[in-house]
Amino acid sequence: MENTGLTSAFWTNAPAVIGIIGLIFAAFFYFRVKALPEGNETMNRIAGYIREGAMAFLTRQYKVLAIYCLAVFVAIGLSMGWLPGACFLLGAFLSLLAGFIGMKAATYANVRTSQEARSGNKPNALLVALDGGAVMGLSVAGLGILGMGALYILFKENEHLSNIIHAFAVGASSIALFARIGGGIYTKAADVGSDIAGKVIEDIPEDDPRNPGVIADNVGDNVGDVAGMGADIYESMIAAIVSAMAIALTAPAGAIPSLVDGGDDSANRIAGVMLPIVLSAIGVIVSLVSIFGARALKNSPPAMVLRVALIFPPVILSIASAILMPMWHVTQGVTAALAAGAIGGAIIGLVTDYYTSSTPVKRIAEASITGAGTNLIRGLAVGMESVAIPMFVVAVVAFIADHFLGLYGIALSAVGMLGGTAVVMTVDAYGPISDNAGGISEMSGLGPEVRAITDELDAVGNTTAAIGKGFAIGSATLTVVALFAAFNMEVNHARAEAGLGDVQLMITDARVLIGLLLGSILPFIVGASTMLAVGKAAGSIVEEIRRQFREIPGLKELKAEPEPKKIVDIATKAALSEMILPGLVAVVVPPVIGYLLGPAALAGTLAGALAVGATMALYMANAGGAWDNAKKFIEKGGLPGHKKGSDVHKAAVVGDMVGDPFKDTSGPGVAILIKVMSVVSLLVAGLIALR
Amino acid sequence: MENTGLTSAFWTNAPAVIGIIGLIFAAFFYFRVKALPEGNETMNRIAGYIREGAMAFLTRQYKVLAIYCLAVFVAIGLSMGWLPGACFLLGAFLSLLAGFIGMKAATYANVRTSQEARSGNKPNALLVALDGGAVMGLSVAGLGILGMGALYILFKENEHLSNIIHAFAVGASSIALFARIGGGIYTKAADVGSDIAGKVIEDIPEDDPRNPGVIADNVGDNVGDVAGMGADIYESMIAAIVSAMAIALTAPAGAIPSLVDGGDDSANRIAGVMLPIVLSAIGVIVSLVSIFGARALKNSPPAMVLRVALIFPPVILSIASAILMPMWHVTQGVTAALAAGAIGGAIIGLVTDYYTSSTPVKRIAEASITGAGTNLIRGLAVGMESVAIPMFVVAVVAFIADHFLGLYGIALSAVGMLGGTAVVMTVDAYGPISDNAGGISEMSGLGPEVRAITDELDAVGNTTAAIGKGFAIGSATLTVVALFAAFNMEVNHARAEAGLGDVQLMITDARVLIGLLLGSILPFIVGASTMLAVGKAAGSIVEEIRRQFREIPGLKELKAEPEPKKIVDIATKAALSEMILPGLVAVVVPPVIGYLLGPAALAGTLAGALAVGATMALYMANAGGAWDNAKKFIEKGGLPGHKKGSDVHKAAVVGDMVGDPFKDTSGPGVAILIKVMSVVSLLVAGLIALR
Repeated sequence: MENTGLTSAFWTNAPAVIGIIGLIFAAFFYFRVKALPEGNETMNRIAGYIREGAMAFLTRQYKVLAIYCLAVFVAIGLSMGWLPGACFLLGAFLSLLAGFIGMKAATYANVRTSQEARSGNKPNALLVALDGGAVMGLSVAGLGILGMGALYILFKENEHLSNIIHAFAVGASSIALFARIGGGIYTKAADVGSDIAGKVIEDIPEDDPRNPGVIADNVGDNVGDVAGMGADIYESMIAAIVSAMAIALTAPAGAIPSLVDGGDDSANRIAGVMLPIVLSAIGVIVSLVSIFGARALKNSPPAMVLRVALIFPPVILSIASAILMPMWHVTQGVTAALAAGAIGGAIIGLVTDYYTSSTPVKRIAEASITGAGTNLIRGLAVGMESVAIPMFVVAVVAFIADHFLGLYGIALSAVGMLGGTAVVMTVDAYGPISDNAGGISEMSGLGPEVRAITDELDAVGNTTAAIGKGFAIGSATLTVVALFAAFNMEVNHARAEAGLGDVQLMITDARVLIGLLLGSILPFIVGASTMLAVGKAAGSIVEEIRRQFREIPGLKELKAEPEPKKIVDIATKAALSEMILPGLVAVVVPPVIGYLLGPAALAGTLAGALAVGATMALYMANAGGAWDNAKKFIEKGGLPGHKKGSDVHKAAVVGDMVGDPFKDTSGPGVAILIKVMSVVSLLVAGLIALR
Repeated sequence: MENTGLTSAFWTNAPAVIGIIGLIFAAFFYFRVKALPEGNETMNRIAGYIREGAMAFLTRQYKVLAIYCLAVFVAIGLSMGWLPGACFLLGAFLSLLAGFIGMKAATYANVRTSQEARSGNKPNALLVALDGGAVMGLSVAGLGILGMGALYILFKENEHLSNIIHAFAVGASSIALFARIGGGIYTKAADVGSDIAGKVIEDIPEDDPRNPGVIADNVGDNVGDVAGMGADIYESMIAAIVSAMAIALTAPAGAIPSLVDGGDDSANRIAGVMLPIVLSAIGVIVSLVSIFGARALKNSPPAMVLRVALIFPPVILSIASAILMPMWHVTQGVTAALAAGAIGGAIIGLVTDYYTSSTPVKRIAEASITGAGTNLIRGLAVGMESVAIPMFVVAVVAFIADHFLGLYGIALSAVGMLGGTAVVMTVDAYGPISDNAGGISEMSGLGPEVRAITDELDAVGNTTAAIGKGFAIGSATLTVVALFAAFNMEVNHARAEAGLGDVQLMITDARVLIGLLLGSILPFIVGASTMLAVGKAAGSIVEEIRRQFREIPGLKELKAEPEPKKIVDIATKAALSEMILPGLVAVVVPPVIGYLLGPAALAGTLAGALAVGATMALYMANAGGAWDNAKKFIEKGGLPGHKKGSDVHKAAVVGDMVGDPFKDTSGPGVAILIKVMSVVSLLVAGLIALR
């Protein structure tokens, strides 16, 4: 049986091969979508604007990121060698590549979804949006697992393997941070700006084709929710795998959990390094099955199909693990950790679903009756309350995983929670595609029955997006928890090489506590700067929209065309310049604190950032989701006597506006911050170990 | 010189004596205020309503707290002895007593301030408000230092001294928590409810005598900003003293910092125990001088006088320390730690001042031009940004203090920051007194020139309140940091007695990290439940106001009287029932986590709660202050063309409404939460040490 064991050539090579299989299916969906009919001339013109704007943003963002990558490449190259430097570049490049492919596909799929809706075929419309999303989903998961698998095949004997994978993770993380924050600022500046313009300039509603901000709003869906989210999820997967590998690689002899029946330290270590890659690869296969399953159920209610598709892969992965572990003579503790993560993820998803679509949303809507003030107080309270259960679940998952396999188990539970990465991303990208399809239908004047189909697809996307965020934040927290152990091991490893004793990272050490205070500041800096960026850019967009209505004769009477490109340009510039400060905070602060105050202070900094960042991310994401749906609840007639356009609805619109940057800019930015800080700390651990 | 040394009978008895001196001056100011003329019949009737409502709330709150105190007394008595149990009761009783005396004085001073303003004498009006506040200030500081001083004299040889002072601190803390949260819910429910009623029911502005919510609003100022704030500041002082004493008492031999020149372990320990009490007592004397200084400057601009009065005592205390330490042969490291705290406190105060009254406020006001949405986005961003510098300053203070005297130094730096407790409380209570004076003047129809005087006094109170909060949160953070060390020492002390080795509270321990996640939830639970409580109670108040206008004929035409007592009753009931959950969370969670998961998890819980709680408290306090002042900025004509009542002003009112519970209910509640959890953990450390 040795040839099918975990360490056989088969399983060593399987992850990279599975990555390639994922990419082949991504290509299949890409060309399938592209071959579909693309509708009439107006639809194509509008879709062209969106595609052009999205690609222009990506190109300009990539130029900025190229400078950043080059600088970090040189820094890593000089301080720890050019091989880790190259791996950093690879981690970053694969992220950018996935974003590029996925966004291309999304901007083809949107108009084709609209066209299927136009021909009245709802199941086919769902299918196009899903296929478009699957390109992103499979690119993200395929490139991620291909990258990790290939690195393992190439460098499994290399003594610097840990540096290599850390650098790869830093590449993935920092792109995720910039893409998420840049995309988040873009999309919400355009969204809020257009919303306000619709209020300030009379008779121009939000989605009106005369509003020059509408194109930028639709571009924003793509750069924020497709490219930004893709980089985020790619990074989550990499970070979870790397945290488990790092613990297995750097644990001192004897401290590695006993994974293989009767195996010695070295056997346990190899199993520990391989398991996260192999299990994630199996997760990609399961996700592929799940995607095809969802396609086959295209005639069922979309809400049900997508919920099942999200929860199915982690559960199946756990079952697969239960079968495989005995065959590989590996402890079922692995299955326990994976299952804890999988079930925990599902619970977090359901809780998120509750807070962003059920009773709490109704209560926020009702609070709007006494005005925007009470709507906001209620929404903030709901956001705060929604933090409790998910964080508690994460703590329980960590407790169970730790019980079986220590901190290594916690890392594996994150791998389990992310077993369905490809599906999560597919469903996440499905959302903006159907949202865009709605926008294109509206702007092309396709009539209410078309809009009804796209609206239904879009509504489902909102809820699943919230569930996806729950998974992302939960797994991020577990990953960061596991990275603490890896960080400490790296530090002590470097100290041992210098002939020094272990560092004791005591929580009662003043350095650790000072670090805790400093770390707790960082999520607030990222939150404040991203909120401000959205506010400022939205203001400039309102000014520009006002200018167009003032200076373009006949615009209001639909006799002249607006100039959407100017808005796109404002949003792009704002996003690119404002993403730099929060991005640098995450990357620069860990080495600076580590260098000035030592590893204990840096560990404290990570703990402070983790505690504040994880909770703030949940608070902002869920408050934003709840406000958004409270507004929609009123629009759908949930409060008899208070229709769209009433004072009560206007109060709810204020909540939604505040929630926009909360849920799509600051919240996700803060969530990534803590991961970036952790992987950067892991990378520099050896350099600051002696401070 | 031995008879004037630190350990002489003189200095052993001095703190208790100074406490009594403080109380004598409190009595002096009390009777001085009461002897002043109290105005006309209408003024007295209104003031009577306010006094009656405030006292009714206090009485009913005390009944609820009596049950709580009895339960905890029995629990402490059974688990660790009746002496600590009695000290718990004493700590709680002194807090309640200070609140009772202070509020009585405040409700006499408000109408007398109004009367002095009526006779056109601004300096005298300032003096009455200041004297009324000084009763609270000196009661709080006097009773606090008397209690600590007396306990030390009585039990300095008792082997359970540490349990005794911990229990005393738990008494102080839990009353602070309930008083602050209960008072906060009351005051903001009444405030927000009246504001909304003024909007919903046409032509009834906020302070109109026909609005039945106005009395409750004025009662709220007393129960929130006098009684609630007083319990909070009393607790801050006790907790800072106790954290330093606890470290000195429980540090293992050799681990106590070397305080006395050439002194042995025992000499250092006695000095370490006495210094915080003696220094705080000197702080009370300095504060008394500062209060009389402020009174003497009554003809100068009040804003300047109050700012100087706040910053003067900590600085003078540091100078006094620089002179005394060499006389006592104590290291000047003590002075360094005190001075770091004093200067840090002043910087935090100035930064708070900046964020709640300068450019950021103007920017929020400007953001209101495009509506409530942008006002809120900007305000939330300002709140988040305002966290950074104060937390950084606290970290630097901790770094400096730790450099000289380790974690004991950090506790002393909190003592230094709180050197001016009596003045801080005087100025804090001055605020609601002048606010009430304004309300009484308005409701009694005393005319605009009277209102101009009270408005000026009130405006100064707003800014100084923000500065006071900065001091409180900064010192709380330092205190909690110091309590970590005390907690760990208590645990190891108990383990040593059971023949077990030390617990290593490693930040990479899964238990610590799981605790970190759990702890990070708690501030959000307190925040959510208090926000919800305010929202719900405000809703009921609006309903009742509506009912009165509907059912009382002639109310709108000023031909009939409103029924303010019904509103007072609603606010009282809501506050008392809704304060219980958040209060119990703080008190019950530490022993439960400690019992179930052990001391490591509890230490992690405290760290998580500290990181999230300190930052959230600053964020909420400053965002709320900034929104409030942005509204006032517009009202004063800061935005030409946008007057009071304009759409822009209405947008700013929404921000102010959200900021109300942020700054006066949830923010302070969260700040106290972390202190309560820490002192409760310290108290139960011995009981859960073996888990």
